[in-house]
Amino acid sequence: MDRSRINRVLGEMKKRNLSQMLVCDPLSIYYLTGYYNLPFERFYALYLHADGACTFFLNKLYYPPENDIEQVWFSDTDDYMALVAERIKRTETLGVDKDLAARFLIPLMDRKAAAGYVNGSVCIDITRGIKDKEEQEKMRAASAVNDAAMAQFRKLVKPGVTELDIASRMLGIYQSLGADGYSFEPLVAFGANAADPHHSPDTTVLKDGDCVLFDVGCKMDGYCSDMTRTFFYKKVSDKAQEIYETVKKANREAVAQISPGVPLRELDETARRIITEAGYGPYFTHRLGHFIGMAEHEYGDVSGSNEWLAEPGMIFSIEPGIYLPGEVGVRIEDLVLVTEEGCEVLNHAPRELEMIG
Amino acid sequence: MDRSRINRVLGEMKKRNLSQMLVCDPLSIYYLTGYYNLPFERFYALYLHADGACTFFLNKLYYPPENDIEQVWFSDTDDYMALVAERIKRTETLGVDKDLAARFLIPLMDRKAAAGYVNGSVCIDITRGIKDKEEQEKMRAASAVNDAAMAQFRKLVKPGVTELDIASRMLGIYQSLGADGYSFEPLVAFGANAADPHHSPDTTVLKDGDCVLFDVGCKMDGYCSDMTRTFFYKKVSDKAQEIYETVKKANREAVAQISPGVPLRELDETARRIITEAGYGPYFTHRLGHFIGMAEHEYGDVSGSNEWLAEPGMIFSIEPGIYLPGEVGVRIEDLVLVTEEGCEVLNHAPRELEMIG
Repeated sequence: MDRSRINRVLGEMKKRNLSQMLVCDPLSIYYLTGYYNLPFERFYALYLHADGACTFFLNKLYYPPENDIEQVWFSDTDDYMALVAERIKRTETLGVDKDLAARFLIPLMDRKAAAGYVNGSVCIDITRGIKDKEEQEKMRAASAVNDAAMAQFRKLVKPGVTELDIASRMLGIYQSLGADGYSFEPLVAFGANAADPHHSPDTTVLKDGDCVLFDVGCKMDGYCSDMTRTFFYKKVSDKAQEIYETVKKANREAVAQISPGVPLRELDETARRIITEAGYGPYFTHRLGHFIGMAEHEYGDVSGSNEWLAEPGMIFSIEPGIYLPGEVGVRIEDLVLVTEEGCEVLNHAPRELEMIG
Repeated sequence: MDRSRINRVLGEMKKRNLSQMLVCDPLSIYYLTGYYNLPFERFYALYLHADGACTFFLNKLYYPPENDIEQVWFSDTDDYMALVAERIKRTETLGVDKDLAARFLIPLMDRKAAAGYVNGSVCIDITRGIKDKEEQEKMRAASAVNDAAMAQFRKLVKPGVTELDIASRMLGIYQSLGADGYSFEPLVAFGANAADPHHSPDTTVLKDGDCVLFDVGCKMDGYCSDMTRTFFYKKVSDKAQEIYETVKKANREAVAQISPGVPLRELDETARRIITEAGYGPYFTHRLGHFIGMAEHEYGDVSGSNEWLAEPGMIFSIEPGIYLPGEVGVRIEDLVLVTEEGCEVLNHAPRELEMIG
């Protein structure tokens, strides 16, 4: 268990005048205690109080945690929400997990367990957004595997191949490189399919001149990687080449701008300005990036509406793209770690326009 | 869309003095409207009112439903919980889905959207527990495929085979029979592994005298099957044979007792009495059965604490078992449909003790 992480959460709670919190997200509980459990429909929570108290609420069907946190055990037939209500300070507001289900929250409210209820997840989500050294090392390792995998995926692009042919071989490649599995289902898109944000790999056959977009990631030791590269098969039109260079420039200039204190909003603005000036503004249809860690998408993003300032330890994606419906889609995505001096790009796969075949 | 199902839900709401309800479970919404959507972390709900009003709350990223239910669309950046609060009757209690997340429920409460909040899911869950003719037909078809699959699974029991060898071939067999996939990950257990409720198929190699337990099910046209059969490989001890015959008797006598008006509790008592009289009471460690439909486990069970009376249209499992740790496990499970006259057993795979090899 990592008391320093709990202390950081308590610090975020204090900023928000919150003295107590019920954490339910299994990944957040793992992050704070080292204990992982998937409760399915059953109740599972970690209670934190500003006075340092820390209590697990556990169903007797779960494996026991091996740490020194106080444990309250219950079975399916117990009135377990009464046990929880007993522990909560009645005269103080309770921060609850954003995912706490109504079937648990309403019984707490009916028992007047706390003076009020607020969504308190931000205290943990912000803490998880700043990776400590151990997490940075795991994120670096997962992205190194992603780089190595991309070098192999690219070799699967051959005459007559379908998107599904390639996608179906990716898990084996990741596993052979030491990953535990996907961080998300891989996206493989040829030609016009790359312009469709809802596309899943299908039986589309590769054609000369197609762009070949891979948006892929693996999970290793509990942490996620996520990278996009776009290749071209046999030839590339002038227009597609212009689009590619514009996206690359947007990626490179946004990355170059990253250092502590820079508003994340400005990174999105930089990438969007470059794409807009090239005449493709309406075809960059999403935010520039998202936070990532134990989950593929974590709280926080790189978008025009996020006023957060970059801080050392933040890891997020920089993924500009241009999508011309029915024609072509190009995205170049890297994960970056904000450092004291600027940033470290976790991906090293080449970004130069590359023709395959 | 099926107005008769909505009317049945409104009937259950009326019994509980509930005039309005916010349904969020995607399967429940599909059941009531024919529209399926997986919202992930986004808000998604169907609002029902006793006056007949029915409103979808939909993110602009979802596909539009093709029915005549009123639609309220929002985007991620809209104050969508304000739109929901506007629609809810402020002076009436709101039934909310048991799974509604705190990040949606608390903003409704902060806006004083309703006079009170209760977990209202029971109104839908009870309705889903009584299958209509169309659902009965789909459940029958899924169980027919499960019977046919069991006949093939049984043939995979050969010298030197492992549990994983067999399990890895099951999906292909189901699909070749027309199923869409598993209703749950199949359980294949040899010998003592069959006595471990947490067992997953592993590299255990089949041995002479092993019991071979298959707890398996497929999903077809949105509905689930679930059946267990236990075979023996090459030989069976007198004790294992006695256990098998006891479990079979418990299954058969519980099934024979099913007809409208019978308390479900009594079915569990009958099976448990037979097993207890044979001296194995402590080794029947779970309830007799569970409801099933679009989900593998649905609301409602066949246990000593359920006072529900059997009603035509209910479909549940009858699955007595005896588990001797370190030795042997036997379970015989069928799905049954309560009819006007008694019940229809949806599974027809043989139940006689069968030796393989």
